Parts: sequence; structure tokens; C-alpha cells
Amino acid sequence: MKEYRSMDRAALEAELRFQQAQLDQFKQLGLKLDMSRGKPCPEQLDLSADMMKLENYIGENGVDARNYGYLEGMPEARRFFADVMQVPSPEQVLVCGNSALSTMYYLIDLGWRVGYVDSIRPWRFCTNIKFLCPTPGYDRHFKVTEYFGFQLIPVPMLETGPDMDMVERLVKDDDSVKGIWCVPVYSNPDGYSYSDETVRRLAAMKTASPDFKIFWDDAYCVHTLTDEVYQVLSILDECEKAGCPERPLVFCSTSKMTFPGAGVAAVASSRRAIEYILHNMSSMIISYDKMNQLRHVRFLKDRKGVLAHMAKHKDIIAPKFELVKSVFQRQLGNCPGIARWTDPKGGYFLSLYVMDGCAKRTVELCKQAGVVLTPAGASYPYGIDPHDHHLRIAPTYPGMEELEQAATLLCTCVRIATLEKLLAE
Amino acid sequence: MKEYRSMDRAALEAELRFQQAQLDQFKQLGLKLDMSRGKPCPEQLDLSADMMKLENYIGENGVDARNYGYLEGMPEARRFFADVMQVPSPEQVLVCGNSALSTMYYLIDLGWRVGYVDSIRPWRFCTNIKFLCPTPGYDRHFKVTEYFGFQLIPVPMLETGPDMDMVERLVKDDDSVKGIWCVPVYSNPDGYSYSDETVRRLAAMKTASPDFKIFWDDAYCVHTLTDEVYQVLSILDECEKAGCPERPLVFCSTSKMTFPGAGVAAVASSRRAIEYILHNMSSMIISYDKMNQLRHVRFLKDRKGVLAHMAKHKDIIAPKFELVKSVFQRQLGNCPGIARWTDPKGGYFLSLYVMDGCAKRTVELCKQAGVVLTPAGASYPYGIDPHDHHLRIAPTYPGMEELEQAATLLCTCVRIATLEKLLAE
Repeated sequence: MKEYRSMDRAALEAELRFQQAQLDQFKQLGLKLDMSRGKPCPEQLDLSADMMKLENYIGENGVDARNYGYLEGMPEARRFFADVMQVPSPEQVLVCGNSALSTMYYLIDLGWRVGYVDSIRPWRFCTNIKFLCPTPGYDRHFKVTEYFGFQLIPVPMLETGPDMDMVERLVKDDDSVKGIWCVPVYSNPDGYSYSDETVRRLAAMKTASPDFKIFWDDAYCVHTLTDEVYQVLSILDECEKAGCPERPLVFCSTSKMTFPGAGVAAVASSRRAIEYILHNMSSMIISYDKMNQLRHVRFLKDRKGVLAHMAKHKDIIAPKFELVKSVFQRQLGNCPGIARWTDPKGGYFLSLYVMDGCAKRTVELCKQAGVVLTPAGASYPYGIDPHDHHLRIAPTYPGMEELEQAATLLCTCVRIATLEKLLAE
Repeated sequence: MKEYRSMDRAALEAELRFQQAQLDQFKQLGLKLDMSRGKPCPEQLDLSADMMKLENYIGENGVDARNYGYLEGMPEARRFFADVMQVPSPEQVLVCGNSALSTMYYLIDLGWRVGYVDSIRPWRFCTNIKFLCPTPGYDRHFKVTEYFGFQLIPVPMLETGPDMDMVERLVKDDDSVKGIWCVPVYSNPDGYSYSDETVRRLAAMKTASPDFKIFWDDAYCVHTLTDEVYQVLSILDECEKAGCPERPLVFCSTSKMTFPGAGVAAVASSRRAIEYILHNMSSMIISYDKMNQLRHVRFLKDRKGVLAHMAKHKDIIAPKFELVKSVFQRQLGNCPGIARWTDPKGGYFLSLYVMDGCAKRTVELCKQAGVVLTPAGASYPYGIDPHDHHLRIAPTYPGMEELEQAATLLCTCVRIATLEKLLAE
């Protein structure tokens, strides 16, 4: 296949007709596929079926997980998450409900309404409040801060993490910059992991705001697609060393270890920050679901147990990532300049970058043939990709056959969108 | 036993020495009992053990409860709660997580920060914001509004519900009065239920605030201690008739049907209000624990199933209420004027009213002998009982033998506190 940019108008039109015929064939298939979210497939969910068989809900020290109490979490659950998150002490961990996102939301709300343990005043008294958004990133993160009226500041996401030169510049003098969203390992959507230097600079940087917060969503900390797990430097340790132990709020959940509908989330920070959060939370809730906490601990046991369990997930989903990449290579790799894609070693997504101005049209074309992708731009603050060039690909949910069809269709749609663009120029 | 008030000083002193000797005997027993919260006992929790045996988590219409989605709740769970709460349509119901309290907190936060569907502006822009607190009432309700900086206005709780003359007077002209906490059936702590007239007046009353909210915590809607269940008039229907369908927010949870640690909570209101809440919640959470929702629906089935299940609870706890009342009658009934107590037909508490100025001292004396009661004053706004005369009794958790000891001890402590008071006068 020739490079499109070197083809004349007639050749482009012929190629467009050919690709449209391909698309028409896909439409005949009556596909109905949703690839819009990072959802585990049913086979992955089945891996945790045995977890539900727990019959004894009395925890260590005789704590009855079925009754009220222990807002901070079952003692064994705090120890479990301290191990999984590699946090020094269980007392730095608060084990919550089924949603890390709602814990993050709670903590944004807390800072905005009341302030943090290291705040001089609540964030809501700051005019023109801002939050840094490494981009592309997780749409639901951005949405939380958008909902609270923050101005979202995009920062380019590099293969080593956010562009730290820009981050340092932005936080240095402007005390209305209150925090940053981070997915440090196997980032959503690129699949990048933060380098040691990035972590050190995030911890050491001078911030004009004394209560600057790093929302460190370690959502994919053990979600490898290879035989190794990326070891990110501990943001808690680095911030402690740098003299700002309250800066990071570290999140983790079992949503994509066991059940996205019914996992357990946890947050870690300094002991002082955790005590402060607990004190505030006690006005909101008596205790989280400790039965589910106990089920998880008994089933997954510890970090080692989690890693063994995640290897089973990997066996199911790594071939899906490989399949998507091989389809991209086959269908787009021979046509330079129209697309590139990331090669994640873990996580739930990869990014497909198409020609500027072609992402939305690609999504629209896919939809016409029955395949729903994440809306173009979703990975950008306010849902606006200024280049309209990014697509978030979530390969985990569909079966292999459907996935191959969907990926092939996607490539056809990328080609059509590109050809339409070139012909319109 | 003579009435204390008719005894002379020497007789009072002799009686005090006698009661103190009784107390000393209790101290020998080394009791260690916590009657401070309304917790189900282990036998009650065992009633729901079979619920945990569910193996198939595919709901109706093929919805996989294990995966993301359906923020509004599993369709069958919405229908279940509509039936239990006697709400016309499942679309008026939102099924949430394990805590009704945190749902109430969320909605107070929503009104304060953003406003409700019928708000002109968020409540936070109102200076000197107030909330009505039928008193005695539930401490955790009062705490939520205290935490958000509301002024708590006590309203006397009568056997028919809050003093409606006072409520109507308070809401009529002052638009900073934003809402009222209600436990309409088997109230915490008195065990009173709202009369039809109370419900009609709450719905029909003119409020200066256009977005006045009734937080209708139907926590004990099916928690009877007899063979009947109190049928409270529907606040949703009455408000709809009165032209203020968005006024009530109705809460219910299975915390004291199945597991307080791991139940399911729901909120109902007008369809319009529920749509608005859902829209706001979508920034916070992807979905609640639908596996737990499905477990509950499969186990409890419908309102009829719930009532059958609650009859088993009643068989365990009604004798505990009877025991406490019979001890009170035996130990205090023959000594007029020093105590009276309520006679609830359901719920988790009863109130013991002692002589003014004697409640705190009674709690202190009980504690010395190893029995922890709810702090005196806890059922009043800011934890202050102006008469220092109310004690909340929670008989459900202890075993019968312990309960008899604790109730007897309590009566001794009431007598000592009373005698000390009389001797100090």
C-alpha cells in the first residue's frame, strides 16, 4: 500500500471507494460491540468466583465483619492493602467501599469544602482554582475536578510521566494550582509508567500552594501484561523525604482484580492525613462493607497472592492486546503517517493516534457499523482533544473473534476518515 | 418502696448506702457490656447467612452484576425497594451502597454545594442556615447537619411525630430553615410513629424556602416488635398532592434486615429529583455494589418476603425489649417520679427519662460497673440535653442474661443518681 500523501486525487478516490466497500461489508455483519470502557470480560470475572464462597465472617481479633464498626477497615484488610500498595504501615491505609473513584471524589470534596490537614483554608475560598491533568488521561478523573469548578490544565503525558518541566513551572508561583491527577503505572490510556526521576521531581518540587495534592491513582499497580510488574518509586517515601508527607493521596482498588461492580478500594497517605480523613468521614458513614473486605483478604491473601491472581488475568487479556496490535500492524503499518499506537506493558488501554482531525470521524464511522468506541477527545480535559487525533482502545471485554473484527473495522474507518480528510484539503 | 421525695434526709442517706452496696456487688461481676449503639445481635445476623450462598450473578435482562454499570441500581433491586418502600414506580428509586447515612450525607452535601432540582441557589449561599431536629432523635442525623455548619433547631418529638405547630411556625417565614430530619416509623429513640395528620401537615405546610427538604429516614419501616407493621401515610403521595413532589427524600436500607456491615441502601423521591441526583452522582461513582443488591433481592424477594424475614428478627429481639421493660417496672415502677420509659412497637430503641439532671450521672455510674450506654444527651442537637434527663436504651445486642444484669444495674444507677441529686438540693 502506498503512502496516502503521495497519491493523486483519483487514486485517493479509488482507495476511498474500496475502503467504503469494506465498511459496507462490515455493516452487513450486524456487529454490536461496546469497546468504550475498560471492562474485564466474563472469563476474567469467573476467576474470582471462589471468593464468594466464604462462610465465616469473623475476622482476626474476633471482629464480626457483619456488624457496624471499624470505619478504618478490617485490620487484616488494612494490612493487605499496605502490602499490595507497598505502604510501610497499615495505619497509613484506610479501606473503603467498592469505588476508588468515589473515594477520590470524597477527598476532592473534602479539600474544596473543609480543606486538608495541611490546608490554611478550604480550596473553595480560592478564586480560579486549577488542577493539572496529564493528557491524555482518565476522563473520570478530569470530570471530578471539572464538576467542582476547577480549571483543568492539560500537561503533556510523556513516556516517563507528565512533562515535569511544565509541571514544575505551573506549580511554582501560582497558589491556585491545587493538585495533579496521576496514574503512575500503566497509565490510562497510553500505558506509560512514571520514571524514578518523575516521582522524585513530583515529591521535591516547590509548590506555591502549601496544600498541593497529588492524586496518585495506582489503579493498575499489579495489572501487568507481561511476566514482570513495573516497580514505581514510592511517592509516599519520596514525599516524606522531601518534607511534604501530606502531599500524596494514593489510591488502589480490587475492581480489576476481582469484580468491578463489587471490589474494595483503599487510600493511603501519611498517618496524620489518614487520621484527619477518618475524623471527617465519621460524619458520613458508620462503616464500609467489611464482609467484602474479608472476602477479598481471604481470597487474595497478600501481594504475592494478588500477583499470582493477576497472572491469570494476564493470560486472558494479553493475547487481546497482542491481537489488536497485530491487526493495527497488518492493516495500518504498511501505510506510513496515518496512525501510530502505544505498546503498553500493563493496564487496560492503548492509545491509537490518527491523523489530526480524524479521530471523531473514525468513531462515528465505527458506530455506524455497530462498534462503540470511547468518544474521541474523552481522554482530554473537557473532552476536547485539540488535535482530534486520539482514540482510546479498550481490548479486554470482547471475545477474540469479535475483537479481531472490531479492530479490523476500526482500521478501515481510520483509513476512510484519513482519505476524506485528504480529499477535503 | 416509698417515693423518694417524701423521705427525710436520714432515710435518703440510708437508701443511698443500700443502693451503693448494690452497685458494689455489680462491680464484682466484672461486667463488660456495650449497649451504646443499635446493633443487631449475632443470632440476628445468622438469619441471613443463606443470602451469601448466591452463585449466579446474572440479573434479569442478562445484566452482569459483577461488572461496571447501572448506577441507578439493578432493575430488580429498584423494583424490590419500590415495593418495600411502597413507592409507585421503580424509576423513583435509586439503589445505592451499604449505607443510607452516607446517601443522606451525599444529599446534604449536594444541596449545600450545588442545590437541588428545585433550588434557586445552593444552600451554602444562605447565611445562618438552619435544620429542624425532632428531639430526641438520631445523633448521626444531627451530626451531618452540624458538620455542614447548619444551626440545629430542636423541635419536641411527640407521640404523633414532631410538634407540628412549632414546625409550621418555624418554616413559614424563615427561608434559612432548609429541612427537617424525620424517622417516621418507630422513631429513634422513642419508638414513636408519625400520625396521618403529621404527614399531611408536613406535606401541606407553606415553607419560606422553596427547596425545603424532608429527610425521611424510614430506617425501621418493617422493623416491628409485634405482629403488625405500622402503616405510615406516604410522604411522597402527600407531597405530590400538595404540589411539592420534590420536598421529600425517602431513605431505607437493609442494614437491620440482613447485615449492618453490608446491607443495601436506597433513596426515593420524584422521578425528576431522582434523575437530577443520578446526573450529579455520575461524577462520583461508576456504579454501586450490584452483586450485593442481587444477593438481597434473591434472598428477600419482595415486601412480603421482607416481612416474613423481619418476623424472625422480632422473635429474637421482642423478648429483649419485654425484659428491659419488666426490669424497669420491677426496679423503678414502685418508686414514682424517678423515671418513665417509652413502650415502642418497633425499632431498635426505647427512651428512659429520669429526673432532670440525673442522666449524665447515671451513664457515668453504669460505666464504672462495666456497662457502656449511649452518652447522655446524644439524642439531642449538639449532644446537649437541656434537662439532662434522657437515656437511649438499645436492648438488641446483649444476650438475655447480660441484658437483665445490665438493666438491673442501670436501675440501681438511676436510683443512686436520683438520691445524690435529692441530697444535694
